[in-house]
Amino acid sequence: MMRLHDLTARDIAHGVTQGNFRAEDVVRDCLDHIAARDGKVLAWEYLDADGAIAAARRADAGEHRGLLAGVPFGIKDIFDTADMPTGYGSPIFAGHRPASDAATVALPRRAGAVALGKTVTTEFANVHPGKTHNPFDPTRTPGGSSSGSAAAVGARMVPLALGTQTTASTIRPASFCGTHALVGSFADISCSGIRQASWSLDRPGLFARSIDDLALFRHVLLGERDTPAWPEPLLPRIGFCRTHLWNDVEPSTQAMLEAAAACLGRAGAAVTDISLPDHFAEIPDAHRWISSYEFTRNFTYEVEHHWKRISSTLRQGRLRDGLGCSYQQYRRAWDYAARCRAQVLAVFDEVDVLLTVSAAGEAPAGTATGNPAFGAIWTALHLPSLNLPAFTGPSGLPVGLQLVAAPHRDRELLGCGLWVEQRLG
Amino acid sequence: MMRLHDLTARDIAHGVTQGNFRAEDVVRDCLDHIAARDGKVLAWEYLDADGAIAAARRADAGEHRGLLAGVPFGIKDIFDTADMPTGYGSPIFAGHRPASDAATVALPRRAGAVALGKTVTTEFANVHPGKTHNPFDPTRTPGGSSSGSAAAVGARMVPLALGTQTTASTIRPASFCGTHALVGSFADISCSGIRQASWSLDRPGLFARSIDDLALFRHVLLGERDTPAWPEPLLPRIGFCRTHLWNDVEPSTQAMLEAAAACLGRAGAAVTDISLPDHFAEIPDAHRWISSYEFTRNFTYEVEHHWKRISSTLRQGRLRDGLGCSYQQYRRAWDYAARCRAQVLAVFDEVDVLLTVSAAGEAPAGTATGNPAFGAIWTALHLPSLNLPAFTGPSGLPVGLQLVAAPHRDRELLGCGLWVEQRLG
Repeated sequence: MMRLHDLTARDIAHGVTQGNFRAEDVVRDCLDHIAARDGKVLAWEYLDADGAIAAARRADAGEHRGLLAGVPFGIKDIFDTADMPTGYGSPIFAGHRPASDAATVALPRRAGAVALGKTVTTEFANVHPGKTHNPFDPTRTPGGSSSGSAAAVGARMVPLALGTQTTASTIRPASFCGTHALVGSFADISCSGIRQASWSLDRPGLFARSIDDLALFRHVLLGERDTPAWPEPLLPRIGFCRTHLWNDVEPSTQAMLEAAAACLGRAGAAVTDISLPDHFAEIPDAHRWISSYEFTRNFTYEVEHHWKRISSTLRQGRLRDGLGCSYQQYRRAWDYAARCRAQVLAVFDEVDVLLTVSAAGEAPAGTATGNPAFGAIWTALHLPSLNLPAFTGPSGLPVGLQLVAAPHRDRELLGCGLWVEQRLG
Repeated sequence: MMRLHDLTARDIAHGVTQGNFRAEDVVRDCLDHIAARDGKVLAWEYLDADGAIAAARRADAGEHRGLLAGVPFGIKDIFDTADMPTGYGSPIFAGHRPASDAATVALPRRAGAVALGKTVTTEFANVHPGKTHNPFDPTRTPGGSSSGSAAAVGARMVPLALGTQTTASTIRPASFCGTHALVGSFADISCSGIRQASWSLDRPGLFARSIDDLALFRHVLLGERDTPAWPEPLLPRIGFCRTHLWNDVEPSTQAMLEAAAACLGRAGAAVTDISLPDHFAEIPDAHRWISSYEFTRNFTYEVEHHWKRISSTLRQGRLRDGLGCSYQQYRRAWDYAARCRAQVLAVFDEVDVLLTVSAAGEAPAGTATGNPAFGAIWTALHLPSLNLPAFTGPSGLPVGLQLVAAPHRDRELLGCGLWVEQRLG
């Protein structure tokens, strides 16, 4: 029998609203599953069992009959929460208590969702890892920076979780942890109350276990209250885009993606090879200077007052880059990225979605969060992207595929994703 | 004899660095002037005299020899400060203590600037007024939302202050309070740690008493540490842009602006009349939906938990608009604004700056912060703009003129502003 923690958000909200089962039982089942699994996964920075049960009881009492009534969710610990500590993955902010909820925390709560707690983030959503292990193999990374959110959804502890992406921080951990994930169009979902890494790149990231749930979560995060139009499968024109990074992709992943492209073609999609302009190979470098410049300005207070409590990973990585980056150098990188964003639009005259890799392969062994380059391109281009947990790698671990769409075609992206998922089986 | 509080930031930093006078004396002189003037102006929400004197002593001891060594500044109370309460202009957050400084607070402090305190903001930088009066006439508004910062600089209490602009919240109060002000290109200066109103519109605003000081302040806020290149007067091609709002401008202001355009033409500038495309008359409406949608999503927590502690002005204004605005309606407004931003660029093939009004006229009587329409256009277009305190109105109060430049031509804007200021005398 399927346990309540295995249900999707859509099914939980429906069941709670119809009175088929209680939100409290859903929350208790999630908490039981967390108790059973989290000793090895360590997805949670802070778990608020009492607060979650109280919120679930309010949902059961009919105080919340919103679109996410009784749906448990996890919150990356760089999102402010008024009732839970928010540490941003840094000892500098251990025990910090914000005065309000981030917009993206308050909106699901308004819709009846139940926050179970805060999930582990890398330090300031940069690369220095937290304590979380991959739920499919504890010797491997869950990916980052949204490590705990990806692991919690992948381990079926919660149906939904919030993350962010500045480089590859949602799509990569989703690929490693076998979850669905959506990074919507740039500047669509509010970032207010999320500790900012980079204003030109940051986006909220949504983790879920189905495309319907991503659509529902996105709908709520946009502040909508009416019943969402559920995604319908859309037959896509697919651009198979290996990118200039193809040689960095593991052969087994290359083979799975080639096979998927062929399968989707046989199933009726128009699949064409798409090469990005050669100079797009410079995008990761532009991304590096934009993100480093902006991150370093944003963290001036921490650099000035808490330098020794910042990891050497961060001090010798993004902060060293950013402290050495002048405004002029930043401006050049930013202008270049803006030109690429204008130029890439022509690709979407020919295709509806790009089919590409989410990561090089299975989650690597160790704690380093993996190669972020397969996210950096699409992040810098401000395009919406979707991870589908489509493959199983040579070690039996999940490997995702990534679909990328034109700006503000998020709904179409989800519809194409549904078609792709149904055909790949 | 000129008192220390009357000096520009450039002169203070030079004097302190050269040992000509002490930062502590500058700060004490500012505090004395505040004690003498602020009983009627009420520019300050919180004044940290002890903290400021301690910081000045550190500057005098040579701990800070940065570009703003010993320069006092004011901070609008929607910028987070680790050592001062931050109330966002709302009783909900009275006494709130953030865990860190906003980027734009930490950067001047790193450069040796001395924070005197927090200045009054309207509620959440929206329109419900704070306690501040116009420094030139206490029966009139200082403008808003950056009311206290404009009044403090206008009353010569500090040489520099930080504000923000989502509609007209910097340029309008600068015009009413007789200060220089710069709203730089969109997404240039970090907004991290500033309570967000609208992610597509918010920008930091800089108040000062000279163009050199705006250039210096901007340089520091961009994170630069080398000696800035001081603005040189640039002979501009001027587009005289009355806009579709010309009939809402008071006749005396119309006359002063017409005379200024004629004067600048006689002084050697090419002055041409520029009409924006007719449909740009719809921009204020698009601005309304973008700002209301985003503001309302951002303040979901406050709406859900503190509805009764929000002013009726805000509840019946931006929040009512935003709660009734669907994502689809928002998307249409946003896409329209994006098209206008692309379209306006052609104007700057013909001219270097647009000459236009900053506000309808002198500060109105009462507490309402005045017509924001003259800011909304340029804010929605993401263009950098500059207020020059160029005129004196029929009641003897300051009236500004506004210069607007192409994106990322901030330095050229300051240079053109210097030329204009010198010619207008």
